[in-house]
Formats: sequence, structure tokens, C-alpha cells
Amino acid sequence: MIPRYSRPEMVAIWSPETKFRIWFEIEAHAADAMAELGIVPKEAAKIIWDKGGKAVFDIDRIDEIERETKHDVIAFLTHLAEIVGPEARFVHQGMTSSDVLDTCLSVQLARATDILLDGLDKLLTALKKRAFEHRDTVTIGRSHGIHAEPTTFGLKLAQAYAEFERCRERLVNARAEIATCAISGAVGTFANIDPRVEAHVAEKMGLLPEPVSTQVIPRDRHAMYFATLAVIASSIERLATEVRHLQRTEVLEAEEYFSPGQKGSSAMPHKRNPVLSENLTGLARMVRAYAMPAMENVALWHERDISHSSVERMIGPDATVTLDFALGRLTGMMEKLVVYPETMQKNMDRFRGLVHSQRVLLALTQAGVSREDSYRLVQRNAMRVWEQGADFLEELLADKDVRAALSEEEIRDRFDLGYHTKHVETIFRRVFGEA
Amino acid sequence: MIPRYSRPEMVAIWSPETKFRIWFEIEAHAADAMAELGIVPKEAAKIIWDKGGKAVFDIDRIDEIERETKHDVIAFLTHLAEIVGPEARFVHQGMTSSDVLDTCLSVQLARATDILLDGLDKLLTALKKRAFEHRDTVTIGRSHGIHAEPTTFGLKLAQAYAEFERCRERLVNARAEIATCAISGAVGTFANIDPRVEAHVAEKMGLLPEPVSTQVIPRDRHAMYFATLAVIASSIERLATEVRHLQRTEVLEAEEYFSPGQKGSSAMPHKRNPVLSENLTGLARMVRAYAMPAMENVALWHERDISHSSVERMIGPDATVTLDFALGRLTGMMEKLVVYPETMQKNMDRFRGLVHSQRVLLALTQAGVSREDSYRLVQRNAMRVWEQGADFLEELLADKDVRAALSEEEIRDRFDLGYHTKHVETIFRRVFGEA
Amino acid sequence: MIPRYSRPEMVAIWSPETKFRIWFEIEAHAADAMAELGIVPKEAAKIIWDKGGKAVFDIDRIDEIERETKHDVIAFLTHLAEIVGPEARFVHQGMTSSDVLDTCLSVQLARATDILLDGLDKLLTALKKRAFEHRDTVTIGRSHGIHAEPTTFGLKLAQAYAEFERCRERLVNARAEIATCAISGAVGTFANIDPRVEAHVAEKMGLLPEPVSTQVIPRDRHAMYFATLAVIASSIERLATEVRHLQRTEVLEAEEYFSPGQKGSSAMPHKRNPVLSENLTGLARMVRAYAMPAMENVALWHERDISHSSVERMIGPDATVTLDFALGRLTGMMEKLVVYPETMQKNMDRFRGLVHSQRVLLALTQAGVSREDSYRLVQRNAMRVWEQGADFLEELLADKDVRAALSEEEIRDRFDLGYHTKHVETIFRRVFGEA
Amino acid sequence: MIPRYSRPEMVAIWSPETKFRIWFEIEAHAADAMAELGIVPKEAAKIIWDKGGKAVFDIDRIDEIERETKHDVIAFLTHLAEIVGPEARFVHQGMTSSDVLDTCLSVQLARATDILLDGLDKLLTALKKRAFEHRDTVTIGRSHGIHAEPTTFGLKLAQAYAEFERCRERLVNARAEIATCAISGAVGTFANIDPRVEAHVAEKMGLLPEPVSTQVIPRDRHAMYFATLAVIASSIERLATEVRHLQRTEVLEAEEYFSPGQKGSSAMPHKRNPVLSENLTGLARMVRAYAMPAMENVALWHERDISHSSVERMIGPDATVTLDFALGRLTGMMEKLVVYPETMQKNMDRFRGLVHSQRVLLALTQAGVSREDSYRLVQRNAMRVWEQGADFLEELLADKDVRAALSEEEIRDRFDLGYHTKHVETIFRRVFGEA
Repeated sequence: MIPRYSRPEMVAIWSPETKFRIWFEIEAHAADAMAELGIVPKEAAKIIWDKGGKAVFDIDRIDEIERETKHDVIAFLTHLAEIVGPEARFVHQGMTSSDVLDTCLSVQLARATDILLDGLDKLLTALKKRAFEHRDTVTIGRSHGIHAEPTTFGLKLAQAYAEFERCRERLVNARAEIATCAISGAVGTFANIDPRVEAHVAEKMGLLPEPVSTQVIPRDRHAMYFATLAVIASSIERLATEVRHLQRTEVLEAEEYFSPGQKGSSAMPHKRNPVLSENLTGLARMVRAYAMPAMENVALWHERDISHSSVERMIGPDATVTLDFALGRLTGMMEKLVVYPETMQKNMDRFRGLVHSQRVLLALTQAGVSREDSYRLVQRNAMRVWEQGADFLEELLADKDVRAALSEEEIRDRFDLGYHTKHVETIFRRVFGEA
Repeated sequence: MIPRYSRPEMVAIWSPETKFRIWFEIEAHAADAMAELGIVPKEAAKIIWDKGGKAVFDIDRIDEIERETKHDVIAFLTHLAEIVGPEARFVHQGMTSSDVLDTCLSVQLARATDILLDGLDKLLTALKKRAFEHRDTVTIGRSHGIHAEPTTFGLKLAQAYAEFERCRERLVNARAEIATCAISGAVGTFANIDPRVEAHVAEKMGLLPEPVSTQVIPRDRHAMYFATLAVIASSIERLATEVRHLQRTEVLEAEEYFSPGQKGSSAMPHKRNPVLSENLTGLARMVRAYAMPAMENVALWHERDISHSSVERMIGPDATVTLDFALGRLTGMMEKLVVYPETMQKNMDRFRGLVHSQRVLLALTQAGVSREDSYRLVQRNAMRVWEQGADFLEELLADKDVRAALSEEEIRDRFDLGYHTKHVETIFRRVFGEA
Repeated sequence: MIPRYSRPEMVAIWSPETKFRIWFEIEAHAADAMAELGIVPKEAAKIIWDKGGKAVFDIDRIDEIERETKHDVIAFLTHLAEIVGPEARFVHQGMTSSDVLDTCLSVQLARATDILLDGLDKLLTALKKRAFEHRDTVTIGRSHGIHAEPTTFGLKLAQAYAEFERCRERLVNARAEIATCAISGAVGTFANIDPRVEAHVAEKMGLLPEPVSTQVIPRDRHAMYFATLAVIASSIERLATEVRHLQRTEVLEAEEYFSPGQKGSSAMPHKRNPVLSENLTGLARMVRAYAMPAMENVALWHERDISHSSVERMIGPDATVTLDFALGRLTGMMEKLVVYPETMQKNMDRFRGLVHSQRVLLALTQAGVSREDSYRLVQRNAMRVWEQGADFLEELLADKDVRAALSEEEIRDRFDLGYHTKHVETIFRRVFGEA
Repeated sequence: MIPRYSRPEMVAIWSPETKFRIWFEIEAHAADAMAELGIVPKEAAKIIWDKGGKAVFDIDRIDEIERETKHDVIAFLTHLAEIVGPEARFVHQGMTSSDVLDTCLSVQLARATDILLDGLDKLLTALKKRAFEHRDTVTIGRSHGIHAEPTTFGLKLAQAYAEFERCRERLVNARAEIATCAISGAVGTFANIDPRVEAHVAEKMGLLPEPVSTQVIPRDRHAMYFATLAVIASSIERLATEVRHLQRTEVLEAEEYFSPGQKGSSAMPHKRNPVLSENLTGLARMVRAYAMPAMENVALWHERDISHSSVERMIGPDATVTLDFALGRLTGMMEKLVVYPETMQKNMDRFRGLVHSQRVLLALTQAGVSREDSYRLVQRNAMRVWEQGADFLEELLADKDVRAALSEEEIRDRFDLGYHTKHVETIFRRVFGEA
């Protein structure tokens, strides 16, 4: 996470201020529950809220205490005692640091996920708009980077839409994975704390109680969470790669928006580079990388060790902030993407007729020619187009063996673009529920 | 995937025989659908089933053709034509190789997942049985590898059960990810094939139609699938690591079953090594590794490139076979795990009373001592136990400052193990719905 | 490692036959050394060589014994005793299984590396030949996929040559990492075995003694080894990606060789797809993936645990076989690559003159125009070329402000291609020591 | 990179101030070289140094310009022009942004590596000191976490020393990988710049010229660099894991230093947790993770794309800062590690005599008993020790079959600890060149 690739709303989730505020809320809600159960005085719980609720925690002071105690939660509790006064002794009763830390991480990740979901929604909106705009913009489909058969630019975007809709579902699942609360004590037995405290805090913080925690919330949850972010990043890379390809000098069927003041290159002023999509490709690599340590975090020793902590202090912010930034950048890029339908048409016409070879092949076999022979007939004419720049239609019309099987009209019929786009509406209905 | 770490049922899914059989079924179902639509003669579809359905495909012959054509699906279709005769020309009408390959991969992964789900079920059964068997077997909980507070061995297993139940849910989601069918032609436009053919094949093969395919089924699905296997592998590593720790010479609270003929070490005959759980640790690393290339496969170029294919030819079998083997090995290991409750008790008694320090701390603060003072009082007595092997209870009873706050009975009450296990039933009910 | 992506010479290194032969040699050389030291009878050492040296080890028999003993080295030694007779009791004296296993792995990896080095040499030869062939074949250089300035195709290949020469050096270093021998006993103290035995075996097997082994050779060595293979794979991916780009329909400056019988696509017979380079891209992903578990293998517990073993049983063959196959495929692909210099020229002329913009910019600043103004002048003319298809030279000649700084001749001079290639020889000399 | 896990000296390398200073030096040295070659006025080069050399670059101003131009190098050059005045037009002549950016990254990575090398030296010094201190401290060696044979604590540390010495060599190699300079223009052809400028800048900045750059320095170099850091991190994890094991409650043979004010746990005051080594385990996971995107950066498109940039903006600082911090933490931890030789002895005595089983086995075979029989004899006595807590020596002395082969004295001789440590000096000499 570096400022260059960050958005403030997401960054704020990971600030010390936010963290200490969440810690306080967890402690204060727990005190409420304990007061309700008669474990601590109700008055104490009220004072904790009254004094702590409006306090601005002094981060420098907390850091100072931590330098001595080498323990962050104790440092916070000591500072909180300075604010709350004697009733502070009713804070954190029977709890362990991880109860606070892990539940706080859940809150932060859940909030971060809400921002990411919002980011995905904005991306989906942009993709849908552009998909319908270009539903019927014919362009060549390419496999292996080689011209295959016609498709439409809208279909490309509908594919992206469907892919990010899957990403959204996955992220909803991932959110459920990490939105749990543990207030279960030193090894998760509730020896010193009533399970009803956990239930109360969970509800107030918008979480579900963790069925079995062992001081920590189990890290398979977090592994699944960060793995999901990594898959979403990979989908971002896919769309970014598509744009990079479309903007290649020789292709140039679409282009990232280039603002008036922007300079492409210090050396070559004519260059307009797909720097946003290239940047997104790099960011995707980073988000993907963070999944690995999250998975290595799962196998903690016995009831817990703290090796996961340093990892999460880094990838918690790094992965969510970077993915959030990437989603925002991708959305803006797709909203403003400059599309060149004429170039699409021109590129498709490059080998006139060759894109229809599959249809001719099919017509031949349907006319009773064996599959092997049909293939050979099509291939020999296709090769003349490819190597000598001939026109495929004319070659076919002049080929005796082809004409023995197909009439001129039957051949010409195979060169109709509408043939390829007739099911675009079907697919749009599948994806968007409308066309 | 190597024979050493393979089980035959899973290996069979990835055999050439299975693959060609699935290819045939896809082609034959597609022919049926086309016959129904009047595209190919019904008689032809029948002959395809009749001749192909009972044929044993000659893998050497297919390989021979592939060596010439350098194209696997064409090689198969050529061989199929040798079996089916002239009606073979109605096979694969308007389809593209990927329609067959990708749908086949979906079938293979779905079947592999069913075996994995069965493997998880067996593991869950084993864990539940052992968890209830040791529900009340008290053992020390450890954080950071250091004794913390008592828990029960059953709780450890309940945690594992809950974790693998999450894994099961994830795997069900992952199966849905990859159980789709694409019969949509060269770039996914259905130009040469009716979408109803896809619908029919999907239904017959137990899949759902892919909303937008682009010759290929989008690879974010497979990325999510293999990432999920990687997370499951990480959970296997967690449980394996637990067993490795418990079997350490100094701990020895549990041990892998050691069969009579087995030799532990060529050099040290007394050694009984946790080789199964160590092996599982290594296997987990492998399954985890396969997630990375699956994610890198997502960003295919345009409508598709074939870079994903070599990856999937390897990780398809490697990840599923290895995970299947690991699940089986882990299940057997947990079923037979030899548990030593007396050693658990002995280890816990190592620092007599020290595990009760948290309770004493709490009693002190509840008796009105400040949190800071309570901590200091407990710590100074604890240190004498730690450093001089003193008895914690006796030290506390002899500590004037402690006694100023707590009576002898109040102190003694804090040394009751039942205090720590009182919520075990609660947790078991959360996990198993019963206790 | 699957047959499809394997070459027999490398596969043979990992066969059971090779493994048992190496085990035997290690044991027999150790017996020699012990005989020399008077620890075992010289006659025994001789009989071991005589009987074992010519024996064909019965793999099924060894497997059978292993199924009972669950220990591979004991199974082998038992079988060896069946062959050698009573003198077999002098085999493996004071040694531990890992002495044999780890030293064997070193031998296998060293031999595998020799094949890889040979593969790199062949690739370097091919690249050098093609680089000189196209030393002066002018082509457009591209950054961000966008035309930048002219370069030569030979320079692209010289870059690849320099990169793979670095890979070769890295591989030589990596070979030194893993070419060590450990015959040091149960925890590496030489308690039961004389260090001179290790020295003798090391020399005979072409290895160096491991300075400190702890039953195992430390796994940081293997981590570095597999990480190096992963970097080499990444370089393969780079060159493969270049070819994939060059073969794109719109670019088509080079093409993988397409053999007469080969079929590109079952559906589109005109297609010639860069399937080799796409395949290499996937294989690179796999080799890269194997580095991760190798790194996770480093942190073995205490003197050793066996978690690394299952990983290495897989990635040992998988990484070396796959990389070997990829090197061979890449070499063949580059040897036969069909290069189209005319298309390179045609593509470069696409935006006539625009590639010279940097030179014009420089001329303007050298003529005293400020950098900012020069940039603006060049940019406004470049944009007319870009957007309206104008000719850059004519635009510049007609631009009053440009002409105020530069004469017609000064402008025309900037449009000389030779200007860009004048240092090609310099670079070739840097890379090849000749030009 | 977060402040918690950072050291200021390393952080400073990655500050904007340092970066702009390096950019300036590259530009100014280039201007010198061009002045020497008569390309720009000598007076201009002097003024650039005079004004720029003492300037404090205004980072806010540069950021402001970049927001408009969206190009960082142009922003810097614009600001430099504000400082230098009209002679600024002689800056960056014929250069491209990447000439500055990539060469700057080389300088930063080389400097970072020097700090890391220094960190490794300090670690090596600490390890050597502690190794000699405990050269003869006998402790049990463990394989699979199970007691094997005696070794010494010094040998464990000698192993770590040898491992980090290898890490040092690797890092020296890695430094050479990335310490290159490219001043070669838009696509690396030196079209607009004389190779002698590159030679001059390289020498002044302590780098070697890159043989073939293509606007960028090839990223296989950086991949190798970050892969090397990942391997070093894995070695850190190994030593950290060793300490975590030694500090386990049941083992407690060594302990991280616990400062007087430090609090181990808010809930359990008696706990002293190995938090440093656990933390190092997590940090190692992070450094390892950064290798993956560095490898994915290698396959840039054609002469370059900019996808690597965002990755390097993150992992450049993140990997070096984190590794630097980890090395420092590990060094301090090892310097202060509290070692308990008495506990080592006590743990070893846990199964009295069993550690000598291998020696007895050997004695039996040397006395003419077959390997199989010897094994059975040793095993049956060992099992009585293991299961019934018997004394191994007494059991053996009482075993008729054993006594038939060995006299009492021959058996007793096998129970001498010195036997196991006799080669410690040999190994120390191998590692340290002294003992």
C-alpha cells in the first residue's frame, strides 16, 4: 500500500484512529454485556461509554506505553484507564488481547469488503452501459491472437460483466468468511467469560460469533478471503490485458482516454500508451501475491501462534487498498474507453472472407462431402488468401471441387456477418436478464 | 501426481480412457440435440451412439493420428470416424475443439470434486467420532507453544471439524464454479450451433450452460476452484502440524498409529516418527502451489489463448489426486491416532498451578485491586514458580499482598479444572448441533 | 511431469532404476572407504561391487518389501542383501537413510542440471545464429505495445541471447548449490562414521562434502536451485510472449514454423496459431510455481523433518523435466521461426515518419527551442499524423514555427533509418564479443 | 513496508528525496559526459551541477506538476528547469525516462543490498560468537521432532552460520545482477545518445553498463534479485522456527531475552512467548511472497511495457525494508538468546540410554549378527524403555541374545557421550576455518 495506489476511504479503515475506535467499541460493548449479566457494575459500563465514547485517543501516548510494555493491547488499555478512571478496571474482564485484535480485524475486513463491493458495483454499472452501447458493434474474435470469427464488442464486455458478477458473488462469500467475532478468552474455552458477552459484541459489531475460536479466529477464513481477492485481481488483469491488446499500434480498436494535458512519453510525443491497463496488470500481480502468505498463516501452532500477525498487518491494508484502487481505476478506464468501430471493421476485412471459412466447411460437409475432404478443400483456398492476398469468396467460386458440392448462391450465403451476431441477444439476456 | 501419493479412483478420472469416453458422450449428446432440431439425421445420431457407445477407443491409434495432425480433438474425431463410418460426418457439426475440451474438463473436475467431497465427509466423520470420544479429555491449551490454560482434546478436534466443514462448503461452491458447459463455437457466438444443443449437452452431462463463453469457459472459474483446493490443503497442514507437535518426544500426547511391521528408522529402532503428518505437510505445500498458475491462467488473450492448457493438463490431475490422497491419509491417521490422556495430564501439571494465573488475576481485580497491581502480584509469584519450581498455590497463599485481597478459600477456588471445561458442551452444540 | 511435456533423457534420471543404481554406488563407494579405513573387510567391499555392480535390481521386489517395512531405504538394503549375501551386513555401516537419499538427490539434480545446461547451450546457439542472420533487419521497437523507434530484429534476439546467457550463469551457480554430499549419520555428527567416508563418496560421485549436514543437506540449497529454475522459466515466457505478439494477425512479423500435415484448428482451417509459444507460456507458469514449496521446505524442524520429501518427489522430476522440455521446444521454435522482414518494414511505415519524432524534438532543442516548446511543436504535428493520417515529414516542413528553427534539410536529415541502427554493431560486440 | 517493521537507514533509500537526488546525479553525470563529447556546452554541464547540486528539490512542487502531466520524470525535469534555468535544456538530451528510472532503481537496490550485506555480517558475527560459546554444549539432536542422537548446541549454530554464509554469497551474486546502468534511449539502440554517456554514468554511479537494454533493464535480473531475498527469508524462518521449538514449554532449552518491563500476555502473566521468532516467521512469508510478482514482471511486451513499475514501487521498498528489519531482529535475538544447557541435558536423559541404540545396533552387526537380527534385538529392548520406562543399558545387559554377541564392557562402551561429539571440531573447522 503506497499513496500512489490508494484511495482515502479505504486507507482510513486501516488508520490507528479507526483501529483504536473499534477496540474501544468492542471493549465497551463487552462491558455492557457483562453489566447486563451482573459481572460488572452497570454504572461502570455507562462511564466507560461516556468517557471513552467521546475521547480522542492519543496515539503517541499509546505508542509510548507500547514501547515499554511491548504489548499493543495493554498499551491501549492503560491509556484508556487514563481516560476512563477507576472504572477502567472493569474493562477487558476475562478477555484476552486476541479477542479484541481478531474481532477488530473482522470489522476492518468486513468494512473494507463493503467498499470493494461498492467498487465492483460501479464497475458492473460501467461495463453494462458500455456493453449495451456496443452490443452490435461487430469486431473480429481472436483465438491465439489470430483472427477467428466475428463477434461484437458488446459481447466482450458482457463476458467481462459476467466475470465480475461472479467476482461479486465470491466476494460476498468471502465477506461471510471473515465477519465473525471471538470473545472466548485465552484458549477459547470461555473459562473466564460468558459466551453471551461474545453474542452481544458480535451483534453490535455486525458479526456472527465464531463457533470455535482458540484465542484466535481460525485463519483458514482469512486465507479464503485473500485468495478470493487474488482471483478478483486476476479478472482485473484479464480485462486490462484485453485493453492493452486493443490499443496496440497495429490493432488500435480501442484506447484509454488521453486527457489534454497528459504527456505520453518524454521522448516520443506522439505516443499514447495504455498506462492504466499496464498499471492494473502490475497491481493484479501484487494482490495475487498476498494470497500466498495468507495461506501459510493457516497452520498456526496449537491454539495459536502469532506468526500471522505481521503478515496481516501488511496484507490487510495492502491487499484491500490496492484492490480498491485497481477497481476504481478500471472502472474509470472502462467508462471513458475510446472505442473505434471503424478500425474494428477495417481489421476484420484484412483477410477478406477468411473469417467465413468455418461456415464454408460446414456447408461442404452438409452437402455430403466427407469431413476430411471438406477440410482440405477449405484449407487449400484459405492458404491462397493467406499467402497471396487473394479473395476467399472468389477463390471458392473458382474452385471446381467446391462448386461440385455448392452453388454460387450457397457459397455467397456463407459470407453474411449477420449470421454471426444472431445470438447476441440471447447471450445478453443470459447475462443481463435483458437484451 | 505420482503413484506414491495417488488413489486409483481419482487417477481413473484423468485417464485417456475416461477422457475419450467423455468426449464421445459430449459429441453424441450434441448429435442427439442436433437431430432433434433437424440439423442432422436422427438415424445418424442413433448410429453414433450405437457404434461409439460400445466401442473401446484405441488410444495408440489416436496418438498416432495426433502425431501427424498435432491436434488432439481432430485425432479423436478421425478415430471415431473409423469406428462410426460415414455418419461420423454429422459429429462435431458447428462445434469447435474447445467445446469438447472445456466441457470435458468441467465433467472431470466435477467428478473429482465429488470424490473430494466424499473424502471430506469421511474425514468429518472421523473427526466427530474422536472429538466426542475426547470431549472431556483435559489437556493444556498452548499459545505461542507455551502453556496457557486448560482445554480439552475434544475441543481441538471440534475446531478441526468446524474448519473442515467450512472447507466442505467452500468445495461445494467451487464445484458450482467449474460445473458449466460450453458448446458455443469458435468465439462463443453460437454462429454455427444452436444454443439448444449446449442446453441439452449441459443437462445430460450434469452441468449448467456457461452464460458467456468465448471458445473457452472463462478461467476465473478454474482459478477460484484451485484456490479453494489450496485453502483446503492449508487446513490439512494445520491439523498435520498439530499432530506433529503432539508427537514430539517432549510432548508425546498423541501418536500416529505404528503398525507392527513398520520400521521407524534404519539407524534408531526406538524412533516412532510422525511421518504421515510430515508427509501431509509437504503435500499441502504442493496443492497450495498449484493455485498460482491457475490464477495466472485467467488473463487469456482476447477470446482465448491456449497457455492455460499445459497448466491444466498438469494441475488438473496433480491437485485433485494429491488432495484426494491427502484427505484419505489424514482421515486414516485421525481415525487411528493413539491419544495419551495421562501424558496430557502430566504435561499440564508440569508447572503446578501456573495455568490458573489468569483466574487469580481476575479474582484480584474483582476484589478491587487495580489491574496494574493485580498483574504485578500475579507475575511475581508466577516467576517464582517458573524459575524456582515453586508451587503456585502455596506461593499465593504465602503472599501478604495477595492475601490482603483474597481469602485462602477464594484462592483455592481458582484452582478448579472444571472451571475451564464448563462451556465445552456449549461449543460442541455450536459445532455439531449436539453435545 | 507428464509424457506430453517430457524428454526421455531427463525422465530417465528420475526412474527407479537410476535411483537404485545411484543408491548402490553410494553404498558401495562408502564400503570401499570403510574398507580402506579398516572398518569393514576389503574382501566384503569387493564382493559388494562384484555382485551389486552387475545386478539388475528388482523394483517389484523392493516395492513389496517397502509395503511391509514402510521404509524405502531398508527395503532396498534388504533386497541388496538378497543379491550380495552375508557381506551385505557391511553395507550402510553407521550410515542413515538420508545419507543415501540426499546424496542421491544431489546426484540426480546435478545430472539434470547438466542436461539443462546443454539445453541452454543449444538455445544460445540457435539465438546467436538467428541474431546474426537478422542483425540488420530493421523493425519497429515497441514500448507499451505502441510503436516507438526503429530497432533490428537481430537486436531483439541479441537481448534474448544475453538474457539466456545470464540464465546459464545462474544455473551454473545453482548446480554448485546442490552438488554436495552428506554421509554424516543420524544427526550429522559423524558419530558412527568417519568423515573420510563422506570425502571419498563425494569425490567419486562428483560432489563436494556438505560442510554441516544435520541428517539432511540443508534445504536452502534446494530452494535456491528451484528458484533459479523459476527465473529461467520466466525468461522463456518472455521470449515466448514476444513470438506470440509477433504472430498476431495484425502484426505477423514472424511465425512459428507450420509443418505440412499440421492442422491449426478443427473449425478454422486458415488459422496458424502460435501454439508452441503459448504452450511455453503455460509451462513457464508451472516451473515458476514449483519454487514456492521448495522455499517452504527450508524451515525443517530441528535437525530435520521429512515434510520436504513429498515435495521433492514431485518437483524434482516435475521442474527439471518440464524446464528441459521447454528449453528444447523453445530452441526448435527459434531455429525454425519464419521471419517476415517485409511485414516488419510495412508495419513500421504505418505512420510514416512518426517514429522520427524524437529526433525532431532533439533537433529543435539543439536549435535553441526550449524543451517545453519543442515538445509542443512536435506533438501538434504528430497528432495530425495520428488522427488524420497525414505525413509527418510534410506536416513539419509546412509548420512555420518548426521551420523558424530548422531548415528543410535539417528536418529531412532526421528521417534516416540508418541513424537508428548505427550502434547495432556496438551492442553485438558487447553481447557476442564480435559483430 | 510499515513503520513497525522498518529501520530508518533502509527506509531513507526509498524516500522521494533520495530518489530525486539520484535522478539528478544521473542527469548531471550524463550532461558531463555529453559535454566531454562536445554534444552540450561544458559551461551548461557545470551550471547544472552548480545549481542542482546544492538545490533541495521541492517534492510538493514536483507532485503538483505530475498531477498535470501524469509523468513523473517530466515533472522532475520541469522542476529542475525552474532551478537550473535555461541551461536545463541540455539536461536529458536524447535520453528516455526509463534511462533515469531504471538506473535509479539499480542504485537504490545496490545500496539496499549493501545494507543487507552489512546486516548479514552482523548476524554472522553473532552466530559465530554463540556457536563457539556453545561448541561443546551437548544437546539432543532431533529428527521428525523425535529424539535421535546427541549433538551440540554449537553445531546447530554452526549450521545456521554456514547457511547464512551461503545467503551472503547469494546476495553478492544478486547485487551483481541488479547493479547495471542503462542510458540507451527509447528502445535501447543508442540512436540519440552516445554509448560513452552510459559508460560514464555507470562508472560514476558504481554500476556496470547493461549489455542490451531495450528502454528498460531486463527484468530477469530483478526476478533473480527478489528470488534471492526470498530464499534468505526462508533461512531466517528456519532459524526462527528452531528457536520457537526450543522455547516450547515442554522443551525450554533456550528462550528469547525477556526485558524487565516487557509483558508477555495480558491474560497470563507467567507466559514468556517467543514473539520475536514468531514475528520473523511471518516476515519471512512476506519477503517470500514478493518473489512471485517479480518473476511475473519478466515477460514484458516487446521492448518494454510498464506493468513492472507498480510492482516495483511496492516490492522494492517492501522486500528490502522487511528483510533488513528481519535481519536486525534476528541478530539481536540470537545475540541475547538465553540458553539452558541443564535443560538440554535433562531432556536428553528423558529416555536414558535410548539415544545410544544406533551404536548398539552397529556393535551387534560388527559382532557378526545379521542386520535384520540386530535390528530386532535392539528394537525389542528399546520398546521396553519406551513403553515401560525401563533403562536401556540394563535391559541390554539382561538380554541373553544380546549378551551372546557382546560382553558387558562392549555394551557399556556404547553409552559414552564423547563418542558423539568427537568430530565437532572437524565440522567447526569446515565452517569457520578454525575450531
